[in-house]
Amino acid sequence: MTANNTNNSRQASSRPRAAANPAADTHAPTVKKPVKKRPPQKRTAPVRIIPLGGLNEIGKNLYVFECSNDMFIVDCGLAFPDADMLGVDIVIPDFSYLEKNKERFRGIILTHGHEDHVGALPYLLKNINVPVFGTRLTIGLIEGKLKEHGILQQCSLSVVAPRQTVSMGCMAVEFIRVNHSIPDACALAIHTPAGVIVHTGDFKVDYTPIGNEGVIDLARFGELGNKGVLALLSESTNAERPGYATSERIVGESFRSIFATAEDRRIIVATFSSNIHRVQQIVDNAAATGRYIAVSGRSMLNVMNKAIELGYIKISPKMVIDIEEVNDYPPGKVVIVTTGSQGEPLSALSRMATNDHRQVKINPHDLIIISATPIPGNEKLVGRVVNELMRSGAEVVYEKMYDVHVSGHACQDELKMMLSLTKPRFFVPVHGEYKHLKKHAGLARAMGIADENIFILELGDILETDSVDMKITGKATAGAVLVDGSGVGDVGAVVLRDRKKLAEDGLITIVAVIERESGQVLSGPDIVSRGFVYVRESEELLSESRDLMRKVLDSCAARNTREWGLVKTTMRDKLSDLIYSRTKRNPMILPILMMVD
Amino acid sequence: MTANNTNNSRQASSRPRAAANPAADTHAPTVKKPVKKRPPQKRTAPVRIIPLGGLNEIGKNLYVFECSNDMFIVDCGLAFPDADMLGVDIVIPDFSYLEKNKERFRGIILTHGHEDHVGALPYLLKNINVPVFGTRLTIGLIEGKLKEHGILQQCSLSVVAPRQTVSMGCMAVEFIRVNHSIPDACALAIHTPAGVIVHTGDFKVDYTPIGNEGVIDLARFGELGNKGVLALLSESTNAERPGYATSERIVGESFRSIFATAEDRRIIVATFSSNIHRVQQIVDNAAATGRYIAVSGRSMLNVMNKAIELGYIKISPKMVIDIEEVNDYPPGKVVIVTTGSQGEPLSALSRMATNDHRQVKINPHDLIIISATPIPGNEKLVGRVVNELMRSGAEVVYEKMYDVHVSGHACQDELKMMLSLTKPRFFVPVHGEYKHLKKHAGLARAMGIADENIFILELGDILETDSVDMKITGKATAGAVLVDGSGVGDVGAVVLRDRKKLAEDGLITIVAVIERESGQVLSGPDIVSRGFVYVRESEELLSESRDLMRKVLDSCAARNTREWGLVKTTMRDKLSDLIYSRTKRNPMILPILMMVD
Repeated sequence: MTANNTNNSRQASSRPRAAANPAADTHAPTVKKPVKKRPPQKRTAPVRIIPLGGLNEIGKNLYVFECSNDMFIVDCGLAFPDADMLGVDIVIPDFSYLEKNKERFRGIILTHGHEDHVGALPYLLKNINVPVFGTRLTIGLIEGKLKEHGILQQCSLSVVAPRQTVSMGCMAVEFIRVNHSIPDACALAIHTPAGVIVHTGDFKVDYTPIGNEGVIDLARFGELGNKGVLALLSESTNAERPGYATSERIVGESFRSIFATAEDRRIIVATFSSNIHRVQQIVDNAAATGRYIAVSGRSMLNVMNKAIELGYIKISPKMVIDIEEVNDYPPGKVVIVTTGSQGEPLSALSRMATNDHRQVKINPHDLIIISATPIPGNEKLVGRVVNELMRSGAEVVYEKMYDVHVSGHACQDELKMMLSLTKPRFFVPVHGEYKHLKKHAGLARAMGIADENIFILELGDILETDSVDMKITGKATAGAVLVDGSGVGDVGAVVLRDRKKLAEDGLITIVAVIERESGQVLSGPDIVSRGFVYVRESEELLSESRDLMRKVLDSCAARNTREWGLVKTTMRDKLSDLIYSRTKRNPMILPILMMVD
Repeated sequence: MTANNTNNSRQASSRPRAAANPAADTHAPTVKKPVKKRPPQKRTAPVRIIPLGGLNEIGKNLYVFECSNDMFIVDCGLAFPDADMLGVDIVIPDFSYLEKNKERFRGIILTHGHEDHVGALPYLLKNINVPVFGTRLTIGLIEGKLKEHGILQQCSLSVVAPRQTVSMGCMAVEFIRVNHSIPDACALAIHTPAGVIVHTGDFKVDYTPIGNEGVIDLARFGELGNKGVLALLSESTNAERPGYATSERIVGESFRSIFATAEDRRIIVATFSSNIHRVQQIVDNAAATGRYIAVSGRSMLNVMNKAIELGYIKISPKMVIDIEEVNDYPPGKVVIVTTGSQGEPLSALSRMATNDHRQVKINPHDLIIISATPIPGNEKLVGRVVNELMRSGAEVVYEKMYDVHVSGHACQDELKMMLSLTKPRFFVPVHGEYKHLKKHAGLARAMGIADENIFILELGDILETDSVDMKITGKATAGAVLVDGSGVGDVGAVVLRDRKKLAEDGLITIVAVIERESGQVLSGPDIVSRGFVYVRESEELLSESRDLMRKVLDSCAARNTREWGLVKTTMRDKLSDLIYSRTKRNPMILPILMMVD
């Protein structure tokens, strides 16, 4: 202890003090100077953070935390395929790192029940059965998912409440309430030997949340920050948007005024099925205007049933009517809640728009609210649905026309609030494309975090801290696994490349039967095309192609060629040249030679 | 003439007048009451307006005007394919109505040089050679296009200046200057026997336009309106946006402040090649900060060369450097103007982003400005390019971060201004999806135009007016013709359906050689798949498939079946069932039976 240590002012002193010094009287109020946090000097066992999904992309969130002989993960989400992943249904993280380390894999912590945080769970649990922890609604929602996959019985699911802590070997995970576009979302304080790591999950700050949902537990973040947070992993989805996200309650107010203008018209509201607070506000406004609620869309039905069962949606059973009966009620007495707010082609709203919905025929007496913003990439789909609905004469309220949607993600000032509360020594922006992470890093820098303490990671980076330093020390296997139908990972680059080629210009198959001994053509070559041009438009070209192929085969026979691989390559090249010169197209060309003895 | 006619007050009168009546003294100032326009009572020969493109879609603008034995068209644009038009390059209007009426087809009027207004011209002129009229820049730009298609020599192109009139048989077309995101854009006043029809083309109101461009000729619209406009066809692109579009000059001011912060960094600006005013402002700011200009991207080079040649871009030749030499100059002395502002995968900017550009390697010393807003559907592509550019360390200014882009289309208050100036009796919203047309119709209604005088048309509707009434009297052939490679119209619904199927789950071909006489299988069945799954992942499934197909063929042989069409259907169905049960996928299945005698 040095003599200069200013924190010792309450120590008894035998030296006479100036009267102005209140510390001389032990009963007098004292000014206690704050403890100045100094960087820790003692290095601990290394704690590692490894993102296997959720960086440089939207979705597929999965973060590994490990220390000594213990490992756990936060979230296990899916992503939706890019436009160039033809035919792919969903994308999940590569689990090989988890499989390699499964002896020390202690469990899975879920921050909330959105697909980009829990959607890949069944695929992981099928291979590695570890306990799963989440809040009540989160666990409720994944139960349904695991049941569909037929593995619910074998899974260990535990409900955790905010402020409760789950032990993960030498680490412990504390749940902290946040606001988000689904109830029961939590951030995590991960207590490790190296210090506390805060992982925000998805969050926003909503001072007037819906239902029993409390306001985000700002006090706990502050307390942690004051005691010392080693690292903050904070979501970056809205890092490009200035200010604060709007309260969910504003949407309810918009609904109120729109419902008031509806009079005797039927109301149809499309939104995300998981946005339970939104659904509650639709229910409340329906109740206030004496309307019944009907539900269309499988996921909306599933989530609503579960949310009603668990008490997250409060609705009088008398208000609920079956979609089959919806036409038995006067339009002015009905609200239909539906999926399809993203213009998904097979969704209930799209089917209504194309007059393909069994119970709901859109007419000029409908008032339709699309209570969502198109996710980037879906703008055209949503636009198409709006156009079709309007053509049926309905009034459609969409996009920014009224406040019929608010974001569930923290904007810049909320992100700064989180940084101010937790005061982390190290900062890792997570959940977002590179531009979001970069912007978020810029906010942290502006808040005074040193550049060398900010880490924009790549998937698979092993970020290691011993409480004093933090650095990237290696690389774990990470990537995207494509799910197509029931196949997991059997569609890769080659298959996608072929699909792209097939999609762009179709296919031409040339089949010939060859006598093995003589190399003579016994039958064909026949040409079959699909997705290339109308057959009747291309008859001349196809007959010319047939002649060309015949010539190639005959000349091979004449030269007594038996290298059939080479023959096929020649056929492909010659035909490709002819087709391109005539059509400027590059269909896939598939020569097949059938040998007959 | 009736005694009540108030317009005769200046007539000499022998009756004594009250002294208060200044009309008594012919030298005194008189109050001349405005002529009250009354609906015309005399019916004329019918004038017909037929949209063949540009309604319920963005792009592909083509409007037919006809009267008696005369017909002409306004614009001949292309549209870009929707995501589900796999492999299609561009979409053009169906010209069959024009071909059917070519004896009375007098000419083509172009409002401005954007692709969605002129891009289909070569395809039309190849079949029907009629004179083309447009402003100087418009004609200059299409010359290059017609040359590429090898038909420039045979075409008759005439330059028309604003306020000039082109005669089209019994009709005459007057060009009226407007502002837009390309110089030399014009609206049209079409003088017909039934009255004046105003067609706005694309327009905005810019009180501070760039270069020699004048402000939109509001006075002429007003004069026409005062004399009486029969019908207004007005563009609807921004009908959902309140207020006024921002002046192009604002972008120059943003450039000025961004250029000022660049210091010794290289500046790269991506924008639409046709946005010549934007390019001029880049040039001006480069000149002001002592930088050279290099150009990347074929269309940017073409348009800039033409614009410089015609004097629409003013630039000192000493400022221009070849992109090949760009690395010989200090970064702080260079501005690169490039294409790719929409994230187009093969564009110069995309190639820079993926480190695939021959001369330009992006580095942390680059400041990149994307001076455009993503067109709906391109958001993800643009986002991807931004992410990649940022990952190279460059600073990227994009979207709404600064005022680096303004729209070229009139917003609601400008649309209302056009309605107020022209005071049309009939109103036809054009250029836009249904939601835009509907919104624009709502604006017109709010301005006092009666519902029955507003026409939201479908493509092909024949809208007829005899000066007194206006109504839809029939339907002309109209639609979309798909251009793929050099093929025009040979890709239709069947081909697209096949491409979609191939894109989603690939293809399985089964080939067998059959002895015609006995029906015995001589070779095969062999199975070849593309775009389905990795072969090594599916070996077992494919061998099982082969066995199943063999069984089908053997049982046909046993039953002495010779209906090969039916056999193939059985093969397809059985294999489809097997594949779906195992993989939940539906690849295209193509059975081919080769007969050998």
